[in-house]
Amino acid sequence: MSNTSDKFNDLRALFINCSIKKDKTESHTQRLMNRVAGVMEQEGASVEHIYALDHAIAFGMVKDGADSGQADDWPAIQAKIMKADILVLGTPIWLGVKSSVATLVIERMYAYSGDHNDKDQYLYYGKTAGCVITGNEDGIKHCSMDLLYALQHIGYTIPPQADCGWIGEAGPGPSYGDVVEGRAEPVGYDNDFTNRNATFMAWNLMHMARLLKDNGGIPAKGNTTKGWEHVTNAKHQNPEYR
Amino acid sequence: MSNTSDKFNDLRALFINCSIKKDKTESHTQRLMNRVAGVMEQEGASVEHIYALDHAIAFGMVKDGADSGQADDWPAIQAKIMKADILVLGTPIWLGVKSSVATLVIERMYAYSGDHNDKDQYLYYGKTAGCVITGNEDGIKHCSMDLLYALQHIGYTIPPQADCGWIGEAGPGPSYGDVVEGRAEPVGYDNDFTNRNATFMAWNLMHMARLLKDNGGIPAKGNTTKGWEHVTNAKHQNPEYR
Amino acid sequence: MSNTSDKFNDLRALFINCSIKKDKTESHTQRLMNRVAGVMEQEGASVEHIYALDHAIAFGMVKDGADSGQADDWPAIQAKIMKADILVLGTPIWLGVKSSVATLVIERMYAYSGDHNDKDQYLYYGKTAGCVITGNEDGIKHCSMDLLYALQHIGYTIPPQADCGWIGEAGPGPSYGDVVEGRAEPVGYDNDFTNRNATFMAWNLMHMARLLKDNGGIPAKGNTTKGWEHVTNAKHQNPEYR
Amino acid sequence: MSNTSDKFNDLRALFINCSIKKDKTESHTQRLMNRVAGVMEQEGASVEHIYALDHAIAFGMVKDGADSGQADDWPAIQAKIMKADILVLGTPIWLGVKSSVATLVIERMYAYSGDHNDKDQYLYYGKTAGCVITGNEDGIKHCSMDLLYALQHIGYTIPPQADCGWIGEAGPGPSYGDVVEGRAEPVGYDNDFTNRNATFMAWNLMHMARLLKDNGGIPAKGNTTKGWEHVTNAKHQNPEYR
Repeated sequence: MSNTSDKFNDLRALFINCSIKKDKTESHTQRLMNRVAGVMEQEGASVEHIYALDHAIAFGMVKDGADSGQADDWPAIQAKIMKADILVLGTPIWLGVKSSVATLVIERMYAYSGDHNDKDQYLYYGKTAGCVITGNEDGIKHCSMDLLYALQHIGYTIPPQADCGWIGEAGPGPSYGDVVEGRAEPVGYDNDFTNRNATFMAWNLMHMARLLKDNGGIPAKGNTTKGWEHVTNAKHQNPEYR
Repeated sequence: MSNTSDKFNDLRALFINCSIKKDKTESHTQRLMNRVAGVMEQEGASVEHIYALDHAIAFGMVKDGADSGQADDWPAIQAKIMKADILVLGTPIWLGVKSSVATLVIERMYAYSGDHNDKDQYLYYGKTAGCVITGNEDGIKHCSMDLLYALQHIGYTIPPQADCGWIGEAGPGPSYGDVVEGRAEPVGYDNDFTNRNATFMAWNLMHMARLLKDNGGIPAKGNTTKGWEHVTNAKHQNPEYR
Repeated sequence: MSNTSDKFNDLRALFINCSIKKDKTESHTQRLMNRVAGVMEQEGASVEHIYALDHAIAFGMVKDGADSGQADDWPAIQAKIMKADILVLGTPIWLGVKSSVATLVIERMYAYSGDHNDKDQYLYYGKTAGCVITGNEDGIKHCSMDLLYALQHIGYTIPPQADCGWIGEAGPGPSYGDVVEGRAEPVGYDNDFTNRNATFMAWNLMHMARLLKDNGGIPAKGNTTKGWEHVTNAKHQNPEYR
Repeated sequence: MSNTSDKFNDLRALFINCSIKKDKTESHTQRLMNRVAGVMEQEGASVEHIYALDHAIAFGMVKDGADSGQADDWPAIQAKIMKADILVLGTPIWLGVKSSVATLVIERMYAYSGDHNDKDQYLYYGKTAGCVITGNEDGIKHCSMDLLYALQHIGYTIPPQADCGWIGEAGPGPSYGDVVEGRAEPVGYDNDFTNRNATFMAWNLMHMARLLKDNGGIPAKGNTTKGWEHVTNAKHQNPEYR
């Protein structure tokens, strides 16, 4: 099946895998990320993947860890984030929550959040984001609410159903993509709920990126640090019960 | 200051206050909701307020509690939700989490989420939502991530910075709008961070509602239960590591 | 298999099911609660069950809703909570979070939390608590962290592994105890991870209740609102970096 | 004020600060941790502090990162955790959640959680834990529920009110211990709610550690991976509605 139009040819998507495994070939999350990325690529969008642990990423609410003597590849990653219209973060679930690496990635993005885009809005305005979650136990929604909240808080628009994930039945067991005797396909590959959500997510991110790009992002009125007091604003509204 | 255009005259916003206080005049959350609503009204949008506890709302994953013999005003509330372009949920914080009433409201909205809009997408596609949180202690972000996640999961688009809130310093103390001796204004009214966020939120919801309305909502491709398998989809993408 | 001693004969456990289903016979959560309760009964503890929605429970941070004209059975439920050494809350998962009814139950318990026990500690000191979670999708740990945090915050001691739950593979599907063609047992009944956790939880709650009861609860030093300033306390410690 | 007895002389407490600041002297969280630690020291307990970022800690669900070629000081930290009766984790709040470093510390502790103690229970059984949270904005309870849940899940007992924290009024502002013109004391130092909670937490952790130590930990019945099927257990209880 080939793509049906050139509609998304100018869109760039960046996928950052926040697995805690040193060897990226062992990441189960990457497999589901690949499926989401595949939809976008087939529809013409440019996709780039970053495996976070392939890079030295400094700790701290800092733009460049080099300033405090830490090895830090983040500034180069940040440049890629700024070029992308769509950001997808992937995380495994450990103890029901997102990974340390995902937390670190969010912290470093947050360190830039006081910067502004060319409309004087917060830096990430005009972009859209989603997330991919896998684990063998439990916690897709909890990880998603954590990640998607952070992303909208710093300026991303979150379209409907912007996450997808796979977990198995309660308890330890195979992870997404593991080959298990007696199952025709690797675990999770034939899960229609996961495949449907991955599809919805991919398309909704492309639709929203298209919408934002064609309309010049979010209009810069009422949402800039310098301008909000000069337009209709909350400070001058009567809070008393009506 | 009057509104500067007719840009938002056709937008409808619904505000549902999920306070747990029987007497709505005691709700602190309502005061901050009023400020957000005031911005929208001044810019020409139609605003309607519902105080959830003024209504009998049945428990259960049901569309109409009357079917199980419960008094239930929900179907009328649901009709208002469907007419609105913008939904704002307000909740107080108790023990760091959203209220029982907010949880109930989300559950009842979820009960309809299998229904479809006129493009055969999930019911709430094409609409946008945000939330207002107040408490005297702690928990704005936790409540917001919970509410905004639920809303995007059932189909709403979440624009940047779609929440606002007020809390005091750690520990018990006055709530938003309480009059305290020695303070020129009721507590929180002069908090510029809260006023700014309330303003950003109001405008971003209007901008996103405008964008969605002018573009016919989210395009119906790749995100319908009947159609996703017939377009580029995740099931046919190679998940293996590349 | 009969119990092996009289060790737990004097313990009382209260199980409150916070399902949102009006008809309690349809609750899947009850089935897993019954298994936990069964262990305690077999070991000699007295067990009582409350199905929350069998009762009128008023909203509000109030001890008795009757004071504000609401029908309210809570004071009688509260009396049972106070008599119990062990409290187990059960909740279904909806949209990844605990139910509205569970939130309501916690709010009403919290409304009493300023009261004191006979040692002048907060009311629930000296008791122990856990929770049981079921759903067909995802969210055991998120619901547990929410419930167990609230319970320890108001005074309960949380022993190790004080929760258990069951969910199925990602996506809609059968719930705990549903009979499905081709499976020898109702769904989840043969899940050893769930059975093991349910067992650990039941025993750890009994062990902790025993320990607390035999030792007169938590010693009343450093943890009373009237007394903490008269013993070694944080206010007089040097916070500066050492 | 000196301690009033030798009651806690044999207890060891370990405090791990999970700040994301490279320079530990800048950590605000450390200041509140010092107050909690001070109470314990004054009462005779041995206290040791670890500043996580002073050490190389490898990523991964591994016991020793050296096995995968990563610099890793964790095994030495783990040895200290095993010697301590009381564990206190401290974290700053960023975007409403616990830090990347706190997430990393929990992951590494979890990597050992399949090991057993000398009673064949999970490794951390018989120990007790709490947490200290600071930020300038919002999120104490959310961070606490996340940390305390993880700790009880791997075997720690959580006594009542096992957390304390400080945040300021909504919005950016000074952090715990910052010196601000016009305030007699550094910010937060005179907050009685924070001081009281810090005191309750310190004492409850000592009381629980005492209780557990004097009683030989949690009795090893019904809570071991090898033994649970041979005692009264959930698998043999009737789940059907009664």
